Amino acid sequence: MGRPTVLPTAADVEAAAKRIAGVAVRTPLVNSSVLDAAVGARVFLKCETLQHTGSFKFRGAYNKLSQIPEAKRAAGVVAYSSGNHAQGVAAAAKLLGMRATIVMPSDAPKAKRERTAAHGAEVVLYNRDTEDRAAIAHKIAQERGATIVPPYDDPQIIAGQGTIGREIAEDLTALGLKPDVLVIGASGGGLAAGTSLALKAAFSDVKIYTAEPEGFDDTARSFKSGHRESNAKASGTICDALMTQIPGEITFPITSKLIGDGVTASDAEVARAVAFAFRELKLVVEPGGAIGLAALLAGRPPVKGKVVVAVLSGGNVDAEMFDKLIAA
Amino acid sequence: MGRPTVLPTAADVEAAAKRIAGVAVRTPLVNSSVLDAAVGARVFLKCETLQHTGSFKFRGAYNKLSQIPEAKRAAGVVAYSSGNHAQGVAAAAKLLGMRATIVMPSDAPKAKRERTAAHGAEVVLYNRDTEDRAAIAHKIAQERGATIVPPYDDPQIIAGQGTIGREIAEDLTALGLKPDVLVIGASGGGLAAGTSLALKAAFSDVKIYTAEPEGFDDTARSFKSGHRESNAKASGTICDALMTQIPGEITFPITSKLIGDGVTASDAEVARAVAFAFRELKLVVEPGGAIGLAALLAGRPPVKGKVVVAVLSGGNVDAEMFDKLIAA
Repeated sequence: MGRPTVLPTAADVEAAAKRIAGVAVRTPLVNSSVLDAAVGARVFLKCETLQHTGSFKFRGAYNKLSQIPEAKRAAGVVAYSSGNHAQGVAAAAKLLGMRATIVMPSDAPKAKRERTAAHGAEVVLYNRDTEDRAAIAHKIAQERGATIVPPYDDPQIIAGQGTIGREIAEDLTALGLKPDVLVIGASGGGLAAGTSLALKAAFSDVKIYTAEPEGFDDTARSFKSGHRESNAKASGTICDALMTQIPGEITFPITSKLIGDGVTASDAEVARAVAFAFRELKLVVEPGGAIGLAALLAGRPPVKGKVVVAVLSGGNVDAEMFDKLIAA
Repeated sequence: MGRPTVLPTAADVEAAAKRIAGVAVRTPLVNSSVLDAAVGARVFLKCETLQHTGSFKFRGAYNKLSQIPEAKRAAGVVAYSSGNHAQGVAAAAKLLGMRATIVMPSDAPKAKRERTAAHGAEVVLYNRDTEDRAAIAHKIAQERGATIVPPYDDPQIIAGQGTIGREIAEDLTALGLKPDVLVIGASGGGLAAGTSLALKAAFSDVKIYTAEPEGFDDTARSFKSGHRESNAKASGTICDALMTQIPGEITFPITSKLIGDGVTASDAEVARAVAFAFRELKLVVEPGGAIGLAALLAGRPPVKGKVVVAVLSGGNVDAEMFDKLIAA
């Protein structure tokens, strides 16, 4: 785009933590002896499923929207999202008294579309395979003078998601533990970049892996080649939250430096992880939110005997889909 | 039975808390703006669904079993339970290297039977409508010299469940809050008695209500009449964990003094609460575990504007049943 890129830092995550304190949910880091036995490690799950709107996206959205200058607030915000970012922006906008317009793919889960509308946002649908959501959003924003809230490629969004890493560090420190490994889902890379910034600042030795659906491992392949690679397909995994085609311009320089290695999980492995979370953990996790857990349960990466953290990043799944996943 | 009854106290809960520290899960107290809006109060949910074995029962079982003298441990333990106590006892016995035999109703959910066996316990089935589970358990215990672990009418069991109240008090205090109301499920009354002991010790002004399924409100009716009343039916609610026919001999003197008032919820209201927890909270709650939430969502007791706590006491529900509940 030609604009200079200012990468967010751990200090930006600190500032974000102050902004979201008392507004975002301080989500629990849970563990389970059954999970530990299944993975062969000491596993902690950061439950962003329990965050406002059912995913981590509220953190970045609130951090971004709360910094929009007073004069620009009346024109509102515009976002494009497969669903979780949409809800996060809609909820943050409602809290801050701003109008929100969300550009969503027409194949997004019904629950995500309905819940976005329920937060008072206007929903504009587009075809994931033929239309450019960013272009649609930018056109609306230009017409209204509204502020675009990108799903991941924005320093304030990344810093907001990073508060997850800061809370993980706090909770493990309180338990007298240090993490050996973090496994974190990657789509555009906002969650992975922000969380890594904060967790590496607290524990410089932690080894971090991205987790992606099979066939949608643009981030892992980009780590290998050293530049941003694209996915061949734009749809075709049950992980509807993880289908971004290419790592972000701002997220990739961060994730390639702090992570640099990735694992994948198949749709069948993701389904098993969702069923495991239902049966053994009593947690509702959406497919994309279970990608890290799925990889760990499938033995990727190798973590025997280690202290491992994964983020359950979202829980917005239709009852029909959930039923299919837990019946498997 | 003729034996003198020694009622447990808040000091017994303190001692239990030391015994289970680092063994039981320190479960989170979660909140949700959607729930607050639905109830019209500030609602906190103690997630015992995230406890070992998926319910609060592990607390009492471990507190009891860890106090069995070394010389009596080899003979093992015997328990009778609709399922959650069974799993709690089985898991505690396994941790302490003891043999466990569990007498379970033949209509207990398959998940509960299978999971009890998976913890290494021997499962003996009985007919809930025609047989006396206590008699069967006592016969087995006598033959083997094993220790009976009652589901609720035992000071050490009550003290163990009471650690829930102690943790609620700690977490609310850390938030700078005091609870106005606690709504807590009651069957035999172990959870209600223990939790009330501990919460009243910290907050003497808290108003506590039991919550029971419609038609199984023996506790609420006993509060009214002043002596232990029975339910007309032994089965016939989706709350399989809440069908004990009469309040306990030891629990009732405690609950009648510290609680004294109860509310009910219909099966339809319980189903709505389970679906709400799935959709809005991303938590898997079994019907009996959702009774307090169900009552609150139905407007019972009146709590507008108050700080309210409910316990999600268990999450052991079959996939088939869960599917039916969340599809409603």
